[in-house]
Amino acid sequence: MGELLWINGTCHSPEEAYCSCLDRGLLYGDGLFETMRVYGGTIFRLEAHLRRMAQGAQVLHIQLSLSHQELRHAVQTAVARSGLDSAYVRLMITRGVGGRPSELEAGSASVMIWVRGFGGYPEELYQQGMRTILAATRRNEHSPLARIKSLNYLDNLLAGAEARRAGADEAILLNTTGMLAEASASNLFIVNNGRLLTPAVRAGLLPGITRACVIELAATEGIDLSQEPLSLEQLTEADEAFLTNTLMEIMPLTRFAGQPIGAGYIGPLTKQMTRAYRTLVAAETSGTGFPTLHEE
Amino acid sequence: MGELLWINGTCHSPEEAYCSCLDRGLLYGDGLFETMRVYGGTIFRLEAHLRRMAQGAQVLHIQLSLSHQELRHAVQTAVARSGLDSAYVRLMITRGVGGRPSELEAGSASVMIWVRGFGGYPEELYQQGMRTILAATRRNEHSPLARIKSLNYLDNLLAGAEARRAGADEAILLNTTGMLAEASASNLFIVNNGRLLTPAVRAGLLPGITRACVIELAATEGIDLSQEPLSLEQLTEADEAFLTNTLMEIMPLTRFAGQPIGAGYIGPLTKQMTRAYRTLVAAETSGTGFPTLHEE
Repeated sequence: MGELLWINGTCHSPEEAYCSCLDRGLLYGDGLFETMRVYGGTIFRLEAHLRRMAQGAQVLHIQLSLSHQELRHAVQTAVARSGLDSAYVRLMITRGVGGRPSELEAGSASVMIWVRGFGGYPEELYQQGMRTILAATRRNEHSPLARIKSLNYLDNLLAGAEARRAGADEAILLNTTGMLAEASASNLFIVNNGRLLTPAVRAGLLPGITRACVIELAATEGIDLSQEPLSLEQLTEADEAFLTNTLMEIMPLTRFAGQPIGAGYIGPLTKQMTRAYRTLVAAETSGTGFPTLHEE
Repeated sequence: MGELLWINGTCHSPEEAYCSCLDRGLLYGDGLFETMRVYGGTIFRLEAHLRRMAQGAQVLHIQLSLSHQELRHAVQTAVARSGLDSAYVRLMITRGVGGRPSELEAGSASVMIWVRGFGGYPEELYQQGMRTILAATRRNEHSPLARIKSLNYLDNLLAGAEARRAGADEAILLNTTGMLAEASASNLFIVNNGRLLTPAVRAGLLPGITRACVIELAATEGIDLSQEPLSLEQLTEADEAFLTNTLMEIMPLTRFAGQPIGAGYIGPLTKQMTRAYRTLVAAETSGTGFPTLHEE
């Protein structure tokens, strides 16, 4: 049926998908989400996404009515019902309706799964790499929300919009101590002397699923990788840099604040990690070789 | 008709009030709200709330389809339709449905007004004062969201829930430099040697409407008031302290982290400001004397 929303057990077209105006997800952003990608009908790293959501639910004290198995089955059912081979999946849970604001035990949690066609970003963007700026806002590493994917996503949107207004593609966020944290919708890696460096989770970043894949792949590729505090200067003076998220996978970061990073084009280690990531995706999804990553 | 939701021009019962699951208010917390109080059928400081919401809409680049006058009329209509004399009003706007996350120009803004009966907090709480703790999270004074009342309210909820778990009523939040900012759902004032002190907006707090009333009233009452950086020690060593918000008005803060503030009971300046505030409310609402503040 193409694009759809699975809501607490039934599928709806996007035009007919409604929730209560009193859902705490709307009133307070009181919920979580996961963004997943479907390749050849298979959801990549579904288990890792469900695990991260379960950790977020613990932080927020949200009690799901579905078991882990039921939630996995629901996501798979929604994707199967859509009939889409290449898709974007947004799994959302909210605390539901009811209770005073600070009554976290109130409400009956609600589950929504939004599936729509997505074939990847344009190939030109991977060739050219992303242009980035420094966001005005900063990641709050003191907040428990920094490490979970909550529906409080407005700071990220504003940073992304800042990038757009500046004619860039992404915005880099520092944390409140002025160290690198992440980008508005992606994690950040830099290459220095053949080593991969990325900020540690305690810097105030969302531990991305693609980030975890890169950390795994660095080990199998024999590349030294370190999670450590990184300064803005380490980005501007890097040999290469790239961004990661589920939808963009591994995206070269070639410019910051109008200046090239390294030589200003996609570097050898970024290329190696991109190949390794795409091989991993192919192995874990269709299993029949290279997935169609960039169809529109 | 009692409790109701006015949604883009029509009134619904709470059970029948729905919005799209793809509303950006739900997806990202991409919207704003105002909490107002109705005394004797009149909305207290409606203009100030509408002004603050308009400032928030500018920060978020949300274009409302309603003019200021139309929005005021909508809130007044919703309250009149409810027939409620003593009520809580939650005005919400969201960017609506559509667009990629960072496309702030997308969507058609949506307006919701939730009216329900509210007669105030129990009088015992005003006699006893609130017990407070220090929240684990901190206000991010770097974020433009710190100064607006956005639907990204989860940090506040978590701090409030922390207070509840500790057997307290409210949680005090520091900003990322370790200075006092506000409480999870209220602004903070302390009394030192007959002077009123409150953190300045740049400390990372929401400029509350009740806070603004207190600043006004201090002038008319001839009390010296200063907005300045305040340390946690200044709170623990204060002669008195109180919290302000639209629903609780002026609430004595009598304990922090298990220790009394000052003598541990409502102090003379807190009493004076409470009287002055209630006189102001009475003058601007029913105009016929003391409003019924604490009926259940």
